[in-house]
Amino acid sequence: MKEKLTIVKVGGAIVEDEAHLTQLLRDFSAIEGRKLLVHGGGRRATQVAASLGIESRMVNGRRITDADMLDVVTMVYGGLVNKNVVAKLQACGVNALGLTGADINVIRSHKRPVKDGVDFGFVGDVERADGSMLCKLIESGIVPVMAPLTHDGQGNILNTNADTIASETAKALAPFYDVTLIFSFEKKGVLLRPDDDDSVIPVITRADFIKYKADGTISGGMLPKIENALCAIDAGVSQVIITLATAINGHSGTIIR
Amino acid sequence: MKEKLTIVKVGGAIVEDEAHLTQLLRDFSAIEGRKLLVHGGGRRATQVAASLGIESRMVNGRRITDADMLDVVTMVYGGLVNKNVVAKLQACGVNALGLTGADINVIRSHKRPVKDGVDFGFVGDVERADGSMLCKLIESGIVPVMAPLTHDGQGNILNTNADTIASETAKALAPFYDVTLIFSFEKKGVLLRPDDDDSVIPVITRADFIKYKADGTISGGMLPKIENALCAIDAGVSQVIITLATAINGHSGTIIR
Repeated sequence: MKEKLTIVKVGGAIVEDEAHLTQLLRDFSAIEGRKLLVHGGGRRATQVAASLGIESRMVNGRRITDADMLDVVTMVYGGLVNKNVVAKLQACGVNALGLTGADINVIRSHKRPVKDGVDFGFVGDVERADGSMLCKLIESGIVPVMAPLTHDGQGNILNTNADTIASETAKALAPFYDVTLIFSFEKKGVLLRPDDDDSVIPVITRADFIKYKADGTISGGMLPKIENALCAIDAGVSQVIITLATAINGHSGTIIR
Repeated sequence: MKEKLTIVKVGGAIVEDEAHLTQLLRDFSAIEGRKLLVHGGGRRATQVAASLGIESRMVNGRRITDADMLDVVTMVYGGLVNKNVVAKLQACGVNALGLTGADINVIRSHKRPVKDGVDFGFVGDVERADGSMLCKLIESGIVPVMAPLTHDGQGNILNTNADTIASETAKALAPFYDVTLIFSFEKKGVLLRPDDDDSVIPVITRADFIKYKADGTISGGMLPKIENALCAIDAGVSQVIITLATAINGHSGTIIR
């Protein structure tokens, strides 16, 4: 039987609020066994970009990353957010190691091609994540803390969605561990009725997803999140949980199997 | 007999010039055997700070680091410079891993106390560098790339001089390796006559240093650099070389023994 590994993805809204982040990192520290953290940082990047006079442009919720914006996300995700999370985890007794995809060549990507007239710029679509290298680090007691940046192997950093980093990492580690992937966010889970925070759907299978998608129960930004999750399940991840940031240690939220 | 390890410290002026950096990283890639890179980035930090409307204040060549400036150096050293160097080294076939002192708790420091009325702010004086953890990484084929940031173990990143990071790392690795520490900069070495670029002093011992210091041959910013170097030698580092950034693979420069 494979050992358990918990991967937690924490979004920008949590990372950027000092009190929420402190609580999240305390909860993450309390998770027993092997673990790995993936963080975002988009709102902070938007703030820093604005302070530098650089406008943030989004298409379908994804950031257009020109050369100046690439510098901003490299600074904010790889430096400001990642290193502060690492230092705070160290203070909680967690032996954290901050990583981008470039470090130890952990996640290789290629620049997203222009499609339907949209050029996302320096955005990377993942080619492969190196599970065996991550496994070696984890086995030596290290807790990787991954920033949403990858590299193309030609010397260029590329901006990559944090949900994608989380699911690709989970898939790459599935041959080595019994992986639970937790997407923490501001809601209790996937909701049956968007206006009712307590209408959490406890379990979603692929058959459920097809039904919920057809009848409009699940829509918008939740669609790619769940498609991502189901794809991770198909690739051997044991379960994906979508839950509140304050509930990563609990047994609530939506389980995708 | 211990295996050889080469530690190269590259300063801000090289790191911030695209062509110089590319050449330096190519030369670094060509160094045989175990190695480790330490980088600065002060000029870039000054530029980014200025773009954000934050003024850089220096005392004796060291940066005053208030909370805003700490964010800037965390972004620039830990993110922008470090991750670009790592990606470029990966493109050269070097399995680089970017590290601050907080990552895997590699360098612990404490906030510098106010002295002679000068409060440097969030600047860290090194307490200890963990040579055995670095050694483990290096033995697995990883090339650490160290940014001039440390942490206090209480969750705070601190700004630490890159020369200090280089010499503390060299000292911590001296029990494991036959360490050569190379400080690369814009001159061919330590000069006998400041206006004559070819008047390189080939070897400096502690006795030489006392003499050169007394007669004024060595002065200013070179004094702490050589004091640092001699201190590293006393702690078991085999040799320290001060040389041109374009000569890290050569046999020129000033050797401190």
